[in-house]
Amino acid sequence: MLPGPTNVPERVARAMYVPMINHRSADFVDLYVPCIEKTKQVFKTEGDAVCLSASGTGAVEASVVNLVKKGDKVIVPVNGEFSNRLAQMIEWAGGQTIRVETKPGVTATLDQVREAFDNNPDVKAFYCVWNETSTGTMIKYLDRIKDLTSRNDAFYVVDGVSIVGGEELEMDKWGVDIAMTGAQKAFAAPPGISPICVNERTKKYMMNNPPDTMYFNLPRYFRYYDESKHTPFTPALPLLYAYNEAMDIILEEGIDNRIQRHRTCSAALYAGLSAIGLTPFANEDSRSTVVIALNYLPNLEDATFRNTLAKEFRVLVAGGFGNLKGKVFRVGCMGEVHRYHVMRTISAISSTLAMMGYDTDPEAGLKVASQKLSSL
Amino acid sequence: MLPGPTNVPERVARAMYVPMINHRSADFVDLYVPCIEKTKQVFKTEGDAVCLSASGTGAVEASVVNLVKKGDKVIVPVNGEFSNRLAQMIEWAGGQTIRVETKPGVTATLDQVREAFDNNPDVKAFYCVWNETSTGTMIKYLDRIKDLTSRNDAFYVVDGVSIVGGEELEMDKWGVDIAMTGAQKAFAAPPGISPICVNERTKKYMMNNPPDTMYFNLPRYFRYYDESKHTPFTPALPLLYAYNEAMDIILEEGIDNRIQRHRTCSAALYAGLSAIGLTPFANEDSRSTVVIALNYLPNLEDATFRNTLAKEFRVLVAGGFGNLKGKVFRVGCMGEVHRYHVMRTISAISSTLAMMGYDTDPEAGLKVASQKLSSL
Repeated sequence: MLPGPTNVPERVARAMYVPMINHRSADFVDLYVPCIEKTKQVFKTEGDAVCLSASGTGAVEASVVNLVKKGDKVIVPVNGEFSNRLAQMIEWAGGQTIRVETKPGVTATLDQVREAFDNNPDVKAFYCVWNETSTGTMIKYLDRIKDLTSRNDAFYVVDGVSIVGGEELEMDKWGVDIAMTGAQKAFAAPPGISPICVNERTKKYMMNNPPDTMYFNLPRYFRYYDESKHTPFTPALPLLYAYNEAMDIILEEGIDNRIQRHRTCSAALYAGLSAIGLTPFANEDSRSTVVIALNYLPNLEDATFRNTLAKEFRVLVAGGFGNLKGKVFRVGCMGEVHRYHVMRTISAISSTLAMMGYDTDPEAGLKVASQKLSSL
Repeated sequence: MLPGPTNVPERVARAMYVPMINHRSADFVDLYVPCIEKTKQVFKTEGDAVCLSASGTGAVEASVVNLVKKGDKVIVPVNGEFSNRLAQMIEWAGGQTIRVETKPGVTATLDQVREAFDNNPDVKAFYCVWNETSTGTMIKYLDRIKDLTSRNDAFYVVDGVSIVGGEELEMDKWGVDIAMTGAQKAFAAPPGISPICVNERTKKYMMNNPPDTMYFNLPRYFRYYDESKHTPFTPALPLLYAYNEAMDIILEEGIDNRIQRHRTCSAALYAGLSAIGLTPFANEDSRSTVVIALNYLPNLEDATFRNTLAKEFRVLVAGGFGNLKGKVFRVGCMGEVHRYHVMRTISAISSTLAMMGYDTDPEAGLKVASQKLSSL
């Protein structure tokens, strides 16, 4: 139940067990083209996709170094570790960030973002961390940013690293120019592949303004793909096989069904964990449907709690990140998550709390969760 | 018989088939610390190591962006695609390259390198592509560079991407400050992990001069490792399991035995393929012991030759790179390569040439190869 790496289905794990192929051959084209095409389907874009052999942060950095030039103004909401890191990368690339800062458990409102646009008519791009994994918060108005970016054709970039595949994304319809994720989150593939999608106008911009960097040089990836369907550098082949299989599973389930399942499971987790006496860290309006951050009860020690949960019940959850270390724990609701995972997690957390001497009401938690899960 | 990705032993491939773990947990420490320690043993260094989730080019770029600052003079021998790419990266980082250029099939001599040092007493670093995979050439005086770099404590960096583990490297003894490789070459692990080793003084330099970059920010990796034995970004977990197993195999065989096996096999390949009528592309003094580049015979068409070899005999070799496309083909002599691979490759190439109407003498080729292989 980690917020990534998430459990990998048997089919996906087995897909890695293949002999090595030449990454400059037709065998590779047979592997890579389907990866790209399925990625575009999931991101709902007619643009281009690249599967980088890197972590999600690598894909985010790729977007930054290929888009942001010296002096560019970039609006970026900041409320946690990953949005801070994003702002840092934009500044390293020479960009000037307009930070819309909010408290960790709260996302910027659309009004706050609009104000930043009003005050900066010369903005080059809007960048946001859709799901701030460190705080369990999520931006819920991605479909309404286009009205703001379209004022002066600013670029619209969605860092969807921990959420694409688990929540609704309509890249082309919503006017998103660049979006990316990591395979080890809601795609339920192993870590190490991070897809990035780019629409036509952004690709053109990047091709005309290539960055002084090699591994994340997206024009180089586009050129190799257009010419031969290869990648410029040796890709992590076993992980691409796994990714391809994971994308098949997503498309077999259906993207909309998958999103509904994530929403149902997170609603059950929020309700069930609240009923046993825990409180979510995030403000109600900002709560993520894929990462649930919970406040620790008074005197509840992080390591003891998580070790007991892992050792006695084989349920893994994550600790807090950065400033929130020891203050919250985080439950992933991603990828393969289903009825069984939700019920067992609530049961195991409740039992761990009981073993540690806290009063909990497992019956109430499981009952309300089961009701919320009735559609699954 | 590709010059990477090379065949992966069963044990290594199976090692990937494990449940996902938390990369912020003791389970990860149990995986990653052995990877690091074994890497240091193979590179023969007491310094630090990082296993990047990236291709070899990523590790080379990491070394550049963490070492080279604006205006730094860097001496770099250039004789092919990868050394050109390296020089480009150094320039992108703001470095001023002193290129020691030679023809593609020839490496710079030690005298030429010394001359560059003589002419540039203020040089900040010497960078070299040890094994130029694109031309099948290899620098053979790595143990004698220290006399030059020690004049003014210049940094000495070895891009060993296609060769570490297959040829002798004494990082500390030879005064090499930074070296790296890709797992999919002589280590016989899958692609996607690229280890980089850095000695103490270089680590100190990097910590004091961190680069404006995120994914390849080595000080960040050092800090995470020193504090918790973690990596700053989600690593490609299945590939680390495979890497760890591959390192075990290397240490079980013994590094010196492994190097001797590579040398024996390449000597047999050079002798055997020459005896059936082919000529190596590289000058005799510059020939690599891990990548054998061979000139195409007149009118021998690249795609037809390699497709026949692959389809009829299941032997994969690589085409030429960059300017050498269609002019040479390249045989990897890396990783698991043993008697059987050498004999079958010579036999299959000879048979393919015969099928395409060329005169060859398979008997002579196999006989001389078998003699050369007698120690295996």
